[in-house]
Amino acid sequence: MSPNNHSSALKESLSHACSDIEQTIDSLLPMVPGDDAILLEAMRYAALGGGKRLRGFLAVEVASLFGASRQSALRVAASVEFLHAYSLVHDDLPSMDDDDLRRGRPSTHRQFNEAIAILAGDALQTSAFEVLLDPETHSDPLIRANLALALAKASGSAGMVGGQVIDIQGEGRALPLNEVRRLHAMKTGALIRYSAEAGAILAGVTDERRDAIISYGNNLGTAFQVADDVLDSTASAEELGKTAGKDEANGKSTYVSLLGIDGAKAEARRLSEQARDALSSFNEKANTLRALADYVVERRN
Amino acid sequence: MSPNNHSSALKESLSHACSDIEQTIDSLLPMVPGDDAILLEAMRYAALGGGKRLRGFLAVEVASLFGASRQSALRVAASVEFLHAYSLVHDDLPSMDDDDLRRGRPSTHRQFNEAIAILAGDALQTSAFEVLLDPETHSDPLIRANLALALAKASGSAGMVGGQVIDIQGEGRALPLNEVRRLHAMKTGALIRYSAEAGAILAGVTDERRDAIISYGNNLGTAFQVADDVLDSTASAEELGKTAGKDEANGKSTYVSLLGIDGAKAEARRLSEQARDALSSFNEKANTLRALADYVVERRN
Repeated sequence: MSPNNHSSALKESLSHACSDIEQTIDSLLPMVPGDDAILLEAMRYAALGGGKRLRGFLAVEVASLFGASRQSALRVAASVEFLHAYSLVHDDLPSMDDDDLRRGRPSTHRQFNEAIAILAGDALQTSAFEVLLDPETHSDPLIRANLALALAKASGSAGMVGGQVIDIQGEGRALPLNEVRRLHAMKTGALIRYSAEAGAILAGVTDERRDAIISYGNNLGTAFQVADDVLDSTASAEELGKTAGKDEANGKSTYVSLLGIDGAKAEARRLSEQARDALSSFNEKANTLRALADYVVERRN
Repeated sequence: MSPNNHSSALKESLSHACSDIEQTIDSLLPMVPGDDAILLEAMRYAALGGGKRLRGFLAVEVASLFGASRQSALRVAASVEFLHAYSLVHDDLPSMDDDDLRRGRPSTHRQFNEAIAILAGDALQTSAFEVLLDPETHSDPLIRANLALALAKASGSAGMVGGQVIDIQGEGRALPLNEVRRLHAMKTGALIRYSAEAGAILAGVTDERRDAIISYGNNLGTAFQVADDVLDSTASAEELGKTAGKDEANGKSTYVSLLGIDGAKAEARRLSEQARDALSSFNEKANTLRALADYVVERRN
């Protein structure tokens, strides 16, 4: 296939998965009447508010590569998107990044209020675990327990939340490149790597295949973050659907501040190549994942 | 045994379990050097800051009643206490109850800052799941997955967090008794019931025995909350280690505002009796749990 065919096949898979993931999320967060209805409303607002669904798509694509059930994969994808949505809701809070805009709409605490946003984030995290651990996700309890344990490791103090703390503590002072790498490997990379890994856990593949997918996920996650830094410093808020130039305004060290725009772009391409290399033992079934490695560094938002 | 012997045996078990639970928590939250050290510091501050350990003790006592391993039970107890600590850290935030004092010390956001308190709460929730799902908690993945799934159900939008939202939404207006009951069954009751249930899940007991323990946990949890309302309106801040008279000041409907002090005390005793009744099929090994049902309505803080 030519690169262009890869790219149009990717777009089709991505759009198909996006719509299936939205439907799965919708069915997992049914509205209930009562004084607590506002909680589900806020959870739905945060989890169904668009977004690229990169994480959910990764889980679905890796599961499909290994022949796991699509229905199971969609539940795993919804769970990862719940976790991601919770992190965005809390990151946007006034005491954190204080961001009024997310995906082109008011952030959750602006649309509701701070207390509801904090609690909606809390409950989205809980739902992520609840969905994975439900027997509907997989009949084998070891697979359910492993999916949920790996999510906890990727998102807790040694993963996403730990990275967010390093990010906050680093504001206003220059961090060296290795510390920026560690920050992003934890803050963004861990959950992207998990999304790929989860598809492999679901399919119960060999350690060798799982390791190859983890390496792909690691490189893809870092490539994504480097590309994000480039976009943050070059794209407009309209293109991004969120506040632009935020990192510079907050005095944060980024790949762009450390490597320059051209250096950061070259780094993103190098990581994207490494992600492709990690897939060398797979046949053409992995072409969508290969195309995704190009997409994350070429995207405009 | 006379009631007095029950009570001194209870105190001994409680103090022994408290010290073992603190030690388990301490070992599960090791400090790490680096920019994220403050996260672990805040998690430890919130999780090791004293407290009655009622939830952890319940898990340990029910596990012991059914002969489950104490080491496993202590991990389950630590997990429940992580979950409870996360809920207190977030409840105390300025946009929620705005409380400066907790267990006689500055609340976590006063000791650190708001961002760190939110993230420490987030990571404590994650750790609760991580600890349960670790193979060290139990060799059977079905038991691990069931422990974690039941925790998710008890603490998410249909449990603790949902109850907290009903509580917030009800501020400043009169709630009827049945709505106050529902609120507390979710906000406080669900996690107390889970703590008892978790001991039974860990031991893999019959459905009949598990149901008896759930009924005990339900009645105990409600008795605890009614007694809490009585204490909030009669005890001093010094006795409570937290702000007193808070509910009345926030215009919240409580068992005391709905039933009067004497009515609320009678309700607490009735619930405590029902908790004891749920244990009627158990032998004298359940005497500590029976004494605990008296303790929760007789305590002074």
